Amino acid sequence: MKLQLALDQVDLGEALRVTAELESLIDIVEIGTPLIIREGVRAVAAVKERFPALTVLADVKIMDGGEIESRISFEAGADIVTVLGLAHDVTLAAAVREAGRQGRSVMVDLLGVADLRGRIAQVESIGAGYVCVHTASDLQGSGRLPARDPLRALEEAVAAARAAQVAVAGGITAETVAEVARRGPQIVIVGGGILKDPNRREAARRVRERLP
Amino acid sequence: MKLQLALDQVDLGEALRVTAELESLIDIVEIGTPLIIREGVRAVAAVKERFPALTVLADVKIMDGGEIESRISFEAGADIVTVLGLAHDVTLAAAVREAGRQGRSVMVDLLGVADLRGRIAQVESIGAGYVCVHTASDLQGSGRLPARDPLRALEEAVAAARAAQVAVAGGITAETVAEVARRGPQIVIVGGGILKDPNRREAARRVRERLP
Repeated sequence: MKLQLALDQVDLGEALRVTAELESLIDIVEIGTPLIIREGVRAVAAVKERFPALTVLADVKIMDGGEIESRISFEAGADIVTVLGLAHDVTLAAAVREAGRQGRSVMVDLLGVADLRGRIAQVESIGAGYVCVHTASDLQGSGRLPARDPLRALEEAVAAARAAQVAVAGGITAETVAEVARRGPQIVIVGGGILKDPNRREAARRVRERLP
Repeated sequence: MKLQLALDQVDLGEALRVTAELESLIDIVEIGTPLIIREGVRAVAAVKERFPALTVLADVKIMDGGEIESRISFEAGADIVTVLGLAHDVTLAAAVREAGRQGRSVMVDLLGVADLRGRIAQVESIGAGYVCVHTASDLQGSGRLPARDPLRALEEAVAAARAAQVAVAGGITAETVAEVARRGPQIVIVGGGILKDPNRREAARRVRERLP
């Protein structure tokens, strides 16, 4: 099971420091949407250049402009780009085609998708390599429940996925990761659960040791 | 009626050159999503610094992280940020709160929203100052029809909106803008229809003269 570190609320210098510190414990480093907004894909390029052995994911959450937005991200060095599951099939197909041309991949972020099972089958048929079951950060601790129980959603996605690998994101910590891992995703995404810990390396190590 | 120039498939240097050329003809300059992905909000900051009299919109299409993503954009100088209509109400409310704190505004991009009328009422009650009826660029010329006729959608939005101003985007040119303007939006957004013209200033002038 792979561990993806999400770098969201950090600047580029901090992103590079954290990645250096945790490099040996993670498989995929995610340039989170806030970091993309802050720095653009230069953050992708800087991380990929310094850590070429890590898989770099650009969380651009494409909703339109599938070809141009994925191309900018891939050309900066992203191995994987995200497309929203709520985007039109034409947009996803354009990003998947661009990924194919560049030998890279697309992860579909299922944020807000009501019919997980149906949408996973569709995005697999379009050629998405990954799907991500994602509890919005804005819902965590908001007192507003997500539309479905996150662990149930993960089970449903794992059961539905055929070709695509399943990732899971949203408030996962060393305390909760075992429950998540037991559902059998291929990728567990942790951000604040590691970054907000005073001892980040120790937090990452505790997450890592709970993954099979 | 205001004219918003969308800067999508340009780099920052070109964005500044085009804005300088068209400054007297436009009201709002949009730092498009591809330009945000390419450059981050430094593109917002650079345009706002050089053209303080123009309203600057950051088309960040927020889907989660409503507070942090809007704050990064506002702090860079954006007057308006976009939030997807498909985002959760909690996300939109967080962006609207941040806009209120900074004296700025939120535009809700209705891309992919099925129930325009219902969603416009909801986002107005949450405090969105603008809604945007948007035909995805990936659908233009794709042979795939948008879910609804764009002019009909615009009519529906104009009829539904009470407090919010209505913007319209998607493939508008000097040839089609009169038909669009007749439906009575407050803002018409043009990108390629001006930028792809060999004589951009003349194209912008022709768009402008068809707006009341």
